[in-house]
Amino acid sequence: MRQMTLVGFLQAQNCTNFVGSWRHPEAAQDFTSAEYYRRIGRALEAGKFHLGFFDDRLAMPDLFGGDHGPTVANGIRCVKMDPVTILTVMGMATEKLGLGSTFSTTYFEPFQIARIFATLDLMTEGRVAWNVVTSMNDGEARNMGQESHKDHDRRYDRADELMEVVMGHWGTWEDGSIVADKETGLFAHPDKVHRLDHRGEFFYSRGPFTVPRSKQGHPVIIQAGQSGRGKKFAARWSECVFVNYHGLEQARRDYAEFKTMVAAVDRDPEKVFVCAGVYPIVAETRAEAEDKVALIDSLPKEIDSLALLSEVLNFDFAKQPIDKPFTQEEIDSWTGVQGMRDRIRRELGNRPPTPRDFINITHRGTFHDHPRFVGSVKDVADGMEEWFATRACDGFVVAAGYVPGGYEEFSTMVVPELQRRGLMHKDYAGTTLRENLGLERPDAGSWKKWHHG
Amino acid sequence: MRQMTLVGFLQAQNCTNFVGSWRHPEAAQDFTSAEYYRRIGRALEAGKFHLGFFDDRLAMPDLFGGDHGPTVANGIRCVKMDPVTILTVMGMATEKLGLGSTFSTTYFEPFQIARIFATLDLMTEGRVAWNVVTSMNDGEARNMGQESHKDHDRRYDRADELMEVVMGHWGTWEDGSIVADKETGLFAHPDKVHRLDHRGEFFYSRGPFTVPRSKQGHPVIIQAGQSGRGKKFAARWSECVFVNYHGLEQARRDYAEFKTMVAAVDRDPEKVFVCAGVYPIVAETRAEAEDKVALIDSLPKEIDSLALLSEVLNFDFAKQPIDKPFTQEEIDSWTGVQGMRDRIRRELGNRPPTPRDFINITHRGTFHDHPRFVGSVKDVADGMEEWFATRACDGFVVAAGYVPGGYEEFSTMVVPELQRRGLMHKDYAGTTLRENLGLERPDAGSWKKWHHG
Repeated sequence: MRQMTLVGFLQAQNCTNFVGSWRHPEAAQDFTSAEYYRRIGRALEAGKFHLGFFDDRLAMPDLFGGDHGPTVANGIRCVKMDPVTILTVMGMATEKLGLGSTFSTTYFEPFQIARIFATLDLMTEGRVAWNVVTSMNDGEARNMGQESHKDHDRRYDRADELMEVVMGHWGTWEDGSIVADKETGLFAHPDKVHRLDHRGEFFYSRGPFTVPRSKQGHPVIIQAGQSGRGKKFAARWSECVFVNYHGLEQARRDYAEFKTMVAAVDRDPEKVFVCAGVYPIVAETRAEAEDKVALIDSLPKEIDSLALLSEVLNFDFAKQPIDKPFTQEEIDSWTGVQGMRDRIRRELGNRPPTPRDFINITHRGTFHDHPRFVGSVKDVADGMEEWFATRACDGFVVAAGYVPGGYEEFSTMVVPELQRRGLMHKDYAGTTLRENLGLERPDAGSWKKWHHG
Repeated sequence: MRQMTLVGFLQAQNCTNFVGSWRHPEAAQDFTSAEYYRRIGRALEAGKFHLGFFDDRLAMPDLFGGDHGPTVANGIRCVKMDPVTILTVMGMATEKLGLGSTFSTTYFEPFQIARIFATLDLMTEGRVAWNVVTSMNDGEARNMGQESHKDHDRRYDRADELMEVVMGHWGTWEDGSIVADKETGLFAHPDKVHRLDHRGEFFYSRGPFTVPRSKQGHPVIIQAGQSGRGKKFAARWSECVFVNYHGLEQARRDYAEFKTMVAAVDRDPEKVFVCAGVYPIVAETRAEAEDKVALIDSLPKEIDSLALLSEVLNFDFAKQPIDKPFTQEEIDSWTGVQGMRDRIRRELGNRPPTPRDFINITHRGTFHDHPRFVGSVKDVADGMEEWFATRACDGFVVAAGYVPGGYEEFSTMVVPELQRRGLMHKDYAGTTLRENLGLERPDAGSWKKWHHG
């Protein structure tokens, strides 16, 4: 029976993806400590979440006004720690939870990415996933040695080739290559360890790779692109896709369209899990839950939205009066996230959008920028069931209004009800992430596809 | 009173720095598991080691014959996992042990290096050190997108500028900048978080940096260069220097010379600890210890030496008959480690060296490539005391013939004797690495030195 995939949407920073979360009275504040992340990891594992994954960007959102002052003063994701390090901390405090992290294809060499994730996959005995992103803005470029962010489609071309190199390296140590026989002195069969010898348009990476395969073969691939090019990339590579859907009807349409894209590249659509970002708020009664939401909705500031919009669209919103429409040329010149622009166009048709339209339609920076399931256990479970059962998604990326409480409540209240209804696994099926997701262990021999020998 | 600094010389791979270690009957073989590294960490902490540090290179040593077959077949450091990930694992299993890792200045952006190490320094509450290397050979270059390794001195020029950027970023969050006041909504004082705005010959890195300062301010800097240029670099930046000395007389001379270099750049020579690589082998009696050494000395193969020499000198030793002397031009054209060439020249004078000279003089790949202290507890402690007390070094980088046993024996047998003689601290002085080394917490304001605003 089809069951839902549950993912925790995590940040290695001072707030959740909802900026106002740090201002919440119940939010823990020790976000620079290991214990903070251990506690979140334990809450997710108690709720049998398949995966906790860390979002990341390589800069704080300081494009608004070209000044980091308001970003820092208001705590708008101004702390961004290395997510792989923090993922490792979380991995050492859990036993079954899958562990995902974002890592950019734009600023790193594929050998390095392959090595980091393969290492963590060994250290956690096969629980790791990589969320592939192409980065989004000039702030990141300027921290990483470049003046401005690369063109959107060009970034994906580079990402496609990078994936070939990473997947190639990951397949170069055959299973059973290591014998480590002290008597004969044979460490590994030399004919079972291969050199990739990749030489392409963007990358040269010779190998041999230096990390043997893990229990699950290699890390699971996650992707979240929602532009046309991003979806094409996801259809080719992803095993788990994070989407930002905004209503049931649109979700079902987009879901069906994406599954068609997956089938079109000869992959099994049932083995690519579409997980929708959601904000669940649960309480004993609906009235209590609504009180909780009212408190959360009091936390955002307008500057949160303006800073985050500037970040994801790679355009300084301080340059535009809040009610002045943008021209189409202006919008077309932005190099950031395209999915959000497409959404605005869908909502407004031909009317040119103002900055206020961007704030109101995307709900950026507020607790509305994902669908919300609010109410009693039954209310929240009903909402999730409707989305899942009617093929609006295969699972959820659960975002929290505050941590760790948001996950502790969800795990202790909502999860048992989802399990009772048979919508979710009662326990982890195995120890590796692939086993728990129901994905097959990939074949090592696939490296040959990308070998340029 | 002056006391020695003790460092464990670790590898995130299938052997210690002594390749033959994996063939040792008592060597643990689960080197791809977290538990392997936790056990080493616990052994070092039991012995009150100041620091365990991971060596690293970005390729397996496969330059010999241009073929990785012998490297893999003989287990010559063919596994190389990401050391920072493994360091994090070790950090989560220890409480006081300092945690160092190598990271190359040649293939990464300074923002990324600064972020990774600052994050781990927060997660471990101030126990981290960074071993700065410029990488050494074409194998690494070819995995990381470049055809060949950069010129030696040019690498150090780049490394100098990279250090300015990293140290600059590390100072941009003043202490006390974060208030996280939920009532007023003030997260951090915007005038206490600065943007580096670095623009130099090699790097552009704008900031603002995204990781606040740790309990110890920022990670401790380690360096191991032994060429003239490498020592100049170390004198400028290092707080702990790893050296490969080969005898007492030479060690005292080199030590004194290096301390003079440190003083010449207006730094306190007593706050830069020179730690010499050593192989201690201890047993209840001298005869037993000699039996142990005889066993260890039976483990190396000639191919170990040839593979490692090719790696560090960045020259394919398969191209040269083993007894044919190299010309001076040939040697001058190599871009790898210079300290080793200088040493050969010191030993042989004007006689041109053959490959066999390199093997015999450097003892590369054998258990002789560091000084050995072999015998009873008294013998080993006497040897270490002589080196330390007569200013051949300030401490030791303890290498192991097999793990974890080598460290377990050293910690339980030799350390108590060093403590009894007052040569070593009885316990950790504090919780951060700087406290335990007796280093002052650096001032955040130093970022201004490198600010290009």
